[in-house]
Amino acid sequence: MKYIFILFASCFLANSQVKTDALNLMPWPQSISVTNGSFALDKNFKVNITGNPNPRIFARTSQFLRRLDGRTGLFFNQGFVTKINEFPSAQLQINCSQSGKIGINQDESYQLEIQSNKITINANSDLGAIHALETLLQLLQNNSTSYYFPTATISDFPRFTWRGLMIDAARHFQPVDVIKRNLDAMAAMKMNVFHWHLTDDQGWRIELKNHPKLIQLSSDGNYYTQEEIKNIVKYADERGIMVVPEIDVPGHGSAILTAYPEVGSKLNFDENTYSLERNSGIFTPTLDPSNPKTYQLLSEIFDEVCPLFLGNFFHIGGDENEGKDWDSNPKIQEFKKKNNFANNHELQTYFTMQLIPMLKKHNKTLMGWEEIMTKNLSKEAIIHSWKGSNEGIAAGQSLVNAVKNGYKTVLSNGYYIDLMLGVENHYLNDPMPKNITLTTEEKARILGGEAPIWSELVTPTTIDSRIWPRTAAIAERLWSNENITDMTSLRKRMNVISLQLEELGITHIRNKEVLLRHISNNQTNTALEDFSNICEPLKLYSRNNEGTEYKTYSPFTLFADASTPDAKDALGFDAAVTNYLKNKSSENQLLVTDYFKKWINVNAELIELSSNAPLIQPLLPLSKSLSDLSQQLLLKIEKKQIVNPTLVNDLLEQCNSKNHADVELAVYNSLKKLVSAE
Amino acid sequence: MKYIFILFASCFLANSQVKTDALNLMPWPQSISVTNGSFALDKNFKVNITGNPNPRIFARTSQFLRRLDGRTGLFFNQGFVTKINEFPSAQLQINCSQSGKIGINQDESYQLEIQSNKITINANSDLGAIHALETLLQLLQNNSTSYYFPTATISDFPRFTWRGLMIDAARHFQPVDVIKRNLDAMAAMKMNVFHWHLTDDQGWRIELKNHPKLIQLSSDGNYYTQEEIKNIVKYADERGIMVVPEIDVPGHGSAILTAYPEVGSKLNFDENTYSLERNSGIFTPTLDPSNPKTYQLLSEIFDEVCPLFLGNFFHIGGDENEGKDWDSNPKIQEFKKKNNFANNHELQTYFTMQLIPMLKKHNKTLMGWEEIMTKNLSKEAIIHSWKGSNEGIAAGQSLVNAVKNGYKTVLSNGYYIDLMLGVENHYLNDPMPKNITLTTEEKARILGGEAPIWSELVTPTTIDSRIWPRTAAIAERLWSNENITDMTSLRKRMNVISLQLEELGITHIRNKEVLLRHISNNQTNTALEDFSNICEPLKLYSRNNEGTEYKTYSPFTLFADASTPDAKDALGFDAAVTNYLKNKSSENQLLVTDYFKKWINVNAELIELSSNAPLIQPLLPLSKSLSDLSQQLLLKIEKKQIVNPTLVNDLLEQCNSKNHADVELAVYNSLKKLVSAE
Repeated sequence: MKYIFILFASCFLANSQVKTDALNLMPWPQSISVTNGSFALDKNFKVNITGNPNPRIFARTSQFLRRLDGRTGLFFNQGFVTKINEFPSAQLQINCSQSGKIGINQDESYQLEIQSNKITINANSDLGAIHALETLLQLLQNNSTSYYFPTATISDFPRFTWRGLMIDAARHFQPVDVIKRNLDAMAAMKMNVFHWHLTDDQGWRIELKNHPKLIQLSSDGNYYTQEEIKNIVKYADERGIMVVPEIDVPGHGSAILTAYPEVGSKLNFDENTYSLERNSGIFTPTLDPSNPKTYQLLSEIFDEVCPLFLGNFFHIGGDENEGKDWDSNPKIQEFKKKNNFANNHELQTYFTMQLIPMLKKHNKTLMGWEEIMTKNLSKEAIIHSWKGSNEGIAAGQSLVNAVKNGYKTVLSNGYYIDLMLGVENHYLNDPMPKNITLTTEEKARILGGEAPIWSELVTPTTIDSRIWPRTAAIAERLWSNENITDMTSLRKRMNVISLQLEELGITHIRNKEVLLRHISNNQTNTALEDFSNICEPLKLYSRNNEGTEYKTYSPFTLFADASTPDAKDALGFDAAVTNYLKNKSSENQLLVTDYFKKWINVNAELIELSSNAPLIQPLLPLSKSLSDLSQQLLLKIEKKQIVNPTLVNDLLEQCNSKNHADVELAVYNSLKKLVSAE
Repeated sequence: MKYIFILFASCFLANSQVKTDALNLMPWPQSISVTNGSFALDKNFKVNITGNPNPRIFARTSQFLRRLDGRTGLFFNQGFVTKINEFPSAQLQINCSQSGKIGINQDESYQLEIQSNKITINANSDLGAIHALETLLQLLQNNSTSYYFPTATISDFPRFTWRGLMIDAARHFQPVDVIKRNLDAMAAMKMNVFHWHLTDDQGWRIELKNHPKLIQLSSDGNYYTQEEIKNIVKYADERGIMVVPEIDVPGHGSAILTAYPEVGSKLNFDENTYSLERNSGIFTPTLDPSNPKTYQLLSEIFDEVCPLFLGNFFHIGGDENEGKDWDSNPKIQEFKKKNNFANNHELQTYFTMQLIPMLKKHNKTLMGWEEIMTKNLSKEAIIHSWKGSNEGIAAGQSLVNAVKNGYKTVLSNGYYIDLMLGVENHYLNDPMPKNITLTTEEKARILGGEAPIWSELVTPTTIDSRIWPRTAAIAERLWSNENITDMTSLRKRMNVISLQLEELGITHIRNKEVLLRHISNNQTNTALEDFSNICEPLKLYSRNNEGTEYKTYSPFTLFADASTPDAKDALGFDAAVTNYLKNKSSENQLLVTDYFKKWINVNAELIELSSNAPLIQPLLPLSKSLSDLSQQLLLKIEKKQIVNPTLVNDLLEQCNSKNHADVELAVYNSLKKLVSAE
């Protein structure tokens, strides 16, 4: 009997294996088994809710029905779900034993079972149930005429409790609708922390009724009213997302000091000493840690800001304070000496320690960027680890230091999506450090990770394309099992999820089309889009040289703003090159040479377009280099002619230029591979 | 000398004539002359403001700089404009003698003079100046490398003082960002009245702090807070737009009566007598005009709503009250008899008259749909003329009756953009009645017109494509000289403006792409878009049969929702047919037959797509009919074969079917012309 059973089992596994690979779930669930049946959808499909969930489940379930109805066009009879146990005989039964409360270490697990005539969601609370609804939407399948769910059993829970996105609303203000649509996308990716960077040198974005000067003098009229903040906090809560506000002190202080220069660190000041920063970079304006007025002001600010937020965490920034103004102010030096602070770092720790009780009074735990960590800092504080190779230190080193010193910590190093790096860089970056042994307690202090989008070069029109779809991969890293690391599977699923995010309201694809139309001066042509599919914006901080090339009010409607990381055609070309170098069959050769012909054509068409589109001019040198190189390689590969290697190498290096239109050619490395191998 | 001067003059005119025709201004200015020079733009371009304008000019001028910078990518040095006379030497000088106040009969005129080294805007107030800035943006020209303005002199002012757009936020709630982007588009088209339909049978959308039940029971959670209302009113005011709120009474009362059944006209009621309407149509729930409580409630509502709005007009609806519940309620019948009201119409006038003082108390003039007009109605009331052939009466008849009876009036009949009619229907519809002689006083009572978008079938995703670009043509009708009626010029300019509206944030083009991607189940293919370019949504009220086929929560993600009036390819095909019938040259024949080949191919590709896209199935019968007819006509025209006339006529009538996917073929009439001529 035994071998028969094994045979049966392996068939079954193989079978379900095939099926699960075909699914486009993201983040990938902890456990899933799919069988051969299906649950067919029709207009009578209904949902019923039982148990004692938080009311957020009603809004989410109604939204689930509308999204499913929008996808399938089935015209469901069920409208709004507003009561417990309204339709006991409904095909979809959702049961939550208790009401979920947002915060860390909550039970977000769920069980989803799809049978051919019944779907059951069981979750400890609505937090798990709303995750299950997102999974169910992702499971939707169709044939030529109808929609169905595959019969399946899913048991799922997050690997990390902190799965965050940070939006910088200070450098470029991001209106309410931008925040809301990104909260929708976060919920779809099962993310649960929205970190809201509300102040910086470029602006103060939160209304304070007791300190109106902050928005009168330091916001350019771009700020969130308290009602808008409360409205967004509620909107997030209804999606199981905790909002963590950030008021960045003592550095990054230009905005607060424009309104209150008297708490700045400059010895002599007047109302013109500080002003809103229009450039990007690290600036000196810093609060005076020796001045009691500083703490008075901050405590009044916290008293007004804290009640607007439901969560128990408050981010005080604390990063990039170089203390220049501290060094040049004798009073502050004296204060340092008097208190035996060995350096500015200890002085800043003193400053940070004053804030802890101000926040505790409102049941908020203090969180700050890694610079706040010193031997004297309270273990209650949460360390936000962000530095890495860019800052000349080992990636995530502060994360290890933090947990070893007894601090809870969240990782952002490796998740900086504003750096315009490919998704692989972020996806394979695990919060749990490799090759370092940590105790169970130490591991438990690693709460998770957070993707920050800094907005020096980001506008409401372009922000979505800077966040998505790459952040979906980060969401999977933070939710799914650590051994889910297959890039091919990730890219395949991310392409589908990317389109579903647009369906949900994210604008990363549609707005690219608007920008390209604009750049081409509304001349209909595919050349510009083809070119954008092999160009990527300059990476790291190489765009916006010195931080002064672009002002906060500069145009962000250029080709670099329409381009994105993971350029669409780069991978395809690399695969073509790799296959060709392995086996120079005529088929493989054709795949490579077709790209060259396409790019020669793109260059010709761009030249033609440019006669009526000034914004295309800056692209021409790069497209010409690629076209010229393509011509040489065609001669060599197709016509088997001998070409001048110096010329080819010169053209190759021109294709590596970063001096045109703030973009780089994403196909350079593949071209180099080909040239050096030929 | 004389003839030389004439010669010179005519050359000059001819020359400038050519130039003005090339411009894409909308609405077309009252007077424009263009000369041969140009004003070249560079990064040092600056603006200076003098006079005593309203501060709105600073925000508008800063926005003008950002929009111009975004278009040109020039990286202007000037950031925010915040003070009078900041840059006396600036190239663009804006002078406004006084502060503009929104309202009717304000001076909105401006003079714009562009010289090769200087641009001057002179306006009585900032209201005219901000119109001038929109004109200037539309004047932007470019060559292959740079941007410039043609030297020109423009003197401009509106023909009508009421140039409105009405958005129905009741049947489908429209979030704040939808309203704001449409206010931006209105300002770009020099429109100055936003009529906000805030209540109806399907929902109550405005927060009342003193009557919380209205949003608790009658909004499904979709409503504007008072802060959001004030914020939008301010946003509109900054763009020179007056907001006119509408609380629709005594009919269209399901929402208000769901919260307050005690003021309804049904004799016996409980809390379940009334409920939010999920269907479309005209419904009986009506306020009780004989009940003092009704007036108490309305007066309390007005006391809270009126102060939120800056303008001096308040719309009370008053339409489509059939008074069925009045007839069936003996108490109300008794009240009628006691007051000698001959009919329900007189009873409603009594009702309306009670509201006038409630509004006057807040300096608001009462405005209502034409049904409010009877012999006893105060001449202070403004009559909103909307009925026409759809309602079985002569178009705009009430407009003439109103002005002859001494009422001020606004025309909406002929501007119902929810009817999905082609732009020509609206553009050639003039508020000033033809063939009817009116006195100067009577003419003066015609304030202008207003385009209403009723939202039974409209969502935040699709609303822009239902409003724009057609409303730009209505804006021109209301602003420009009555003799500006050339459809060819209108269509040419509208195509350019349409793209500029997207640049400004309107989503009518980008969201269509999102919907089509969705319908094709994300299969990349142009067939669906090609087909959408010859399909239009069913017109008038023929979509949503009986008003019950679609609920307020039905999916609006279907092909009909992605389709728009003025289908892109319909005109081109009609021109091809017309030319071919005039002259059957091989070139003209090819232009026609190419369309047939395209449509045969589209049908084949749609069939292929449908194998993995259920939402394409409903389109196949129509695309097959068109493909089959195309094949027959190809045989006849190209192959000179004899085809079966019965078959051709049957296929032609199948192409006239309205039974598929809520769309109709926009090329039917041209096909019919061709078939009957052949």
